[in-house]
Amino acid sequence: MEYRKFNETYVIRMDRGEEIVSSLTAFCRKENVTLATVEALGAADHVVIGLYDVDARQYHKHNFDGPMEITSLLGSISAKDGEPYLHLHINLCREDMSVIGGHLNECRISATCEMIVRKIEGIVERKLDEEVTGLNLFQFV
Amino acid sequence: MEYRKFNETYVIRMDRGEEIVSSLTAFCRKENVTLATVEALGAADHVVIGLYDVDARQYHKHNFDGPMEITSLLGSISAKDGEPYLHLHINLCREDMSVIGGHLNECRISATCEMIVRKIEGIVERKLDEEVTGLNLFQFV
Amino acid sequence: MEYRKFNETYVIRMDRGEEIVSSLTAFCRKENVTLATVEALGAADHVVIGLYDVDARQYHKHNFDGPMEITSLLGSISAKDGEPYLHLHINLCREDMSVIGGHLNECRISATCEMIVRKIEGIVERKLDEEVTGLNLFQFV
Repeated sequence: MEYRKFNETYVIRMDRGEEIVSSLTAFCRKENVTLATVEALGAADHVVIGLYDVDARQYHKHNFDGPMEITSLLGSISAKDGEPYLHLHINLCREDMSVIGGHLNECRISATCEMIVRKIEGIVERKLDEEVTGLNLFQFV
Repeated sequence: MEYRKFNETYVIRMDRGEEIVSSLTAFCRKENVTLATVEALGAADHVVIGLYDVDARQYHKHNFDGPMEITSLLGSISAKDGEPYLHLHINLCREDMSVIGGHLNECRISATCEMIVRKIEGIVERKLDEEVTGLNLFQFV
Repeated sequence: MEYRKFNETYVIRMDRGEEIVSSLTAFCRKENVTLATVEALGAADHVVIGLYDVDARQYHKHNFDGPMEITSLLGSISAKDGEPYLHLHINLCREDMSVIGGHLNECRISATCEMIVRKIEGIVERKLDEEVTGLNLFQFV
């Protein structure tokens, strides 16, 4: 990963073989990013994406391999228990150009990933919502 | 819905059972947002999406139900006749992780929706283009 | 194409018959935009999208025609050899609302395209990575 910061905006390049979620988490710790938006595109060859089952309170995860373009990656960085908390959703096309997508768990870059992280001056945390969803929702302080 | 404003950026959480288009319209009225961009992700269990037929000048609408992740939601808030005008397009994955999408008419949240609204200082209106498209297009004043 | 600039943000309308990549390239030259992000939605009737084969170092391109909504268009403007360099990825839905997508080569607008270009104050260039990917990657100066 290599990047530059211009005012409150980071322009980031991740490289072949990097895993997006872990690289971005490490970036957040290093740069002390606690509230930001994320947008990206790129190319991947392995992804783990999920769909949340609210009733069962669990993510159904699926692996996909092979050449894919990241047609969109959107999400946010917030904070939970003093650690960066990433919430990213992704769309990817496969060789027939059909698109799959979901909640992003893991994505290995095949060629490059070009990402924009826009810092927001403020604090938004996460709190486990035990009552309704079983998810860590935005908690405003 | 709960939210905080940080400079010109709103961080918004919508909750289970809320309908995105009506909630966001109410938000715009309350906060007097007349020009902004919208980006979001989340999870939904009912959506009405459409595709515009330029020749017939009408939207073909389709309903989808069941567990879905909102893999991307992008669009804008502008103004028409003194009222907020939303134009949103959405992608959602279904249980097999395949993605459907279109012009967003209606979307009911199943778990959460995390939205960023970035205000733009300016005015952009809408005007019905009767001649070519039959749509309310950006009108610059 | 018609547009207005509000601070560092351009709100752009492209019209029926325009091709997005060539129109946006002309816009960048005219407005001297050398680093920016791009987000858009709209409707199209012809698109050329591709998927990069890292091993063969070539894009496999596919044409799609017929009524489509641009459900998301994300990317960046940077600079290569003093010229604007666009890197855009797109998702589009077809008449059954299924979504296709990929690296954007060409997209003809059927109704309208509403685009936001956010200038970033800085310089990011492109450099051909001959060693690993065969692509023009972000080069930070």
